[in-house]
Amino acid sequence: MSLSYVSAETQSRPTEPSVAADDVILTGDRPTGALHLGHYAGSLRSRLALQGQCAQTLLIADLQALTDTSGRAAHVAEHVVEVALDYLAIGIDPDQTTIAVQSSLGALSELTVLYLNLVTVARLERNPTVKAEMELRGFTRDIPAGFLCYPVSQAADITGFRATVVPVGEDQVPMIEQTNEIVRSVNRLAGSATLRECRALLTTTPRLPGVDGRKASKSLGNAIPLGATSEEIRRLVNAMYTDPGHVRASDPGRVEGNVVFAHLDAFDPDPAEVAELKRRYQHGGLGDVALKRRLEGVLEDVIAPIRARRAALARDRGYVMDVIREGSVRAEATTRAVLRDVRRVFALSP
Amino acid sequence: MSLSYVSAETQSRPTEPSVAADDVILTGDRPTGALHLGHYAGSLRSRLALQGQCAQTLLIADLQALTDTSGRAAHVAEHVVEVALDYLAIGIDPDQTTIAVQSSLGALSELTVLYLNLVTVARLERNPTVKAEMELRGFTRDIPAGFLCYPVSQAADITGFRATVVPVGEDQVPMIEQTNEIVRSVNRLAGSATLRECRALLTTTPRLPGVDGRKASKSLGNAIPLGATSEEIRRLVNAMYTDPGHVRASDPGRVEGNVVFAHLDAFDPDPAEVAELKRRYQHGGLGDVALKRRLEGVLEDVIAPIRARRAALARDRGYVMDVIREGSVRAEATTRAVLRDVRRVFALSP
Repeated sequence: MSLSYVSAETQSRPTEPSVAADDVILTGDRPTGALHLGHYAGSLRSRLALQGQCAQTLLIADLQALTDTSGRAAHVAEHVVEVALDYLAIGIDPDQTTIAVQSSLGALSELTVLYLNLVTVARLERNPTVKAEMELRGFTRDIPAGFLCYPVSQAADITGFRATVVPVGEDQVPMIEQTNEIVRSVNRLAGSATLRECRALLTTTPRLPGVDGRKASKSLGNAIPLGATSEEIRRLVNAMYTDPGHVRASDPGRVEGNVVFAHLDAFDPDPAEVAELKRRYQHGGLGDVALKRRLEGVLEDVIAPIRARRAALARDRGYVMDVIREGSVRAEATTRAVLRDVRRVFALSP
Repeated sequence: MSLSYVSAETQSRPTEPSVAADDVILTGDRPTGALHLGHYAGSLRSRLALQGQCAQTLLIADLQALTDTSGRAAHVAEHVVEVALDYLAIGIDPDQTTIAVQSSLGALSELTVLYLNLVTVARLERNPTVKAEMELRGFTRDIPAGFLCYPVSQAADITGFRATVVPVGEDQVPMIEQTNEIVRSVNRLAGSATLRECRALLTTTPRLPGVDGRKASKSLGNAIPLGATSEEIRRLVNAMYTDPGHVRASDPGRVEGNVVFAHLDAFDPDPAEVAELKRRYQHGGLGDVALKRRLEGVLEDVIAPIRARRAALARDRGYVMDVIREGSVRAEATTRAVLRDVRRVFALSP
């Protein structure tokens, strides 16, 4: 689902965020499906923790979503509002965090077209993230040109907001390097520090698996949506992969690869007790059913308030649309100003 | 100099233009140098002939010029006005023909970014025009991504003006095919004829050579500028390559590859007399000096009025800037309307 904005696929306990007051954070999601608990653990929670500490923009990257799903444009369009709903439901405050839609920001396309002159095709093909994503999607030379060029589009996003901090997973670090190469090219052409370099804010905790142990994905139906009902939570927790060798409660069980423990690690408010549960599970004497009931309660505590806010907001779509519109207007002003600066570097009139 | 807008490098006698009243012509030039007689013979003259027969836009393609000369941005910027001056000097009437600057039309970049999703990298690499230009410039895999993608940018230009007719040389026909493939992809996604296909208006006459017999190029100093003084015309005509075996006037001389005859073919108002001169030259008995004096007179007749208008306009740069600005405003409205249509196809809000 998310790609460059892969933070949404990774998981972390909110750690001490290392940002300064004058930092500018850009992050976001590709609107290809509803956000789920993996996104919450991996990035949404840390966006909440960062909120108010410095400027932060959440970019709903609909244009980037089209780079490999242009045939599913209507699906992408629908999910723009869904993602904004998810943001607001978890507690993102539009007065503190700008929520903007990529496709409404024409300046980003103009920056992309200018930056394409500063990057070689060979460099894009060497980009490890692009290479990995190409393999994942089974692309060879028949990749859409937009897909090959998306690191450039992402550099436009990052620089368009003068972002200094980009929360990403380890696999996305090459995208940050690519952006900084473009920043240095622009500054070299300009003979001055027109653009600021950015740094990755690394997600260090492991990715939260889907209930079947595979990568969590809306399309696989193995992820727990942020708006899940109590029944859905129960059904999905019951379906969670644990340890096939752990047949009776008295058998010793494996904690590694155990999806229930992965979720307890991510969400249980009492890590000490989780450690004790792991010990008992490994020793034998703790059944999956008891464990799953505990997790069900933990997840219900996490999701219930989000679900309630999401339902209330969903009845007031006018408000959600206003939030997106106002955020995009603010973002338009920011990105236009950067475009003006970059145009000057290319000797183009304002 | 010009590339896709290569019409400006080719030569033709103005022939019966095959356009209908509801056709829309898009052509233009990359502003990388002053226009010269080769441009005049190859395309400027036919633009004049087409003027008033249907809608026509001349796009000064400064963004495209940056795809392989991003280090020479200031040079490109300077020549935007020079090219507009050349247009007005030859008799382009801004009330009948729109003169617009590519970089002032943000909608074209937005269309480019959307179209990049509809074309594969392999397809761009197979484009014969891109391949030829890559060889010409000595590029391999280290081509700028913007250069690989410029057929897509050109499709944005053509469709952005709803152009149906694009005057090009034979070597540029693949660019028209590329554009029409994108048009069909958009229409397939739309389920309707959102965009119109375009056709090439082929330049059939041979390219006017430079005075040394090589390709005419501003950078080689072998082209006669549209604003050349009488002294420059004399100097350049005197330097023209004729037939090295034609030592005495009485010797038989070769007409093929003879730059003087190429220019007489392009500009002498009396083709019958040129045919007779060719006969005498081949037979022996006609010296280069007499021939060059004739050509000098012919070129002076072509250039003198252009030079005079150009000098007058150059003293009124405010007027030229106004022409560019007003043309770009009109073009902005046209291209924005197309972008709205194409965004709808990608389910993006207006």
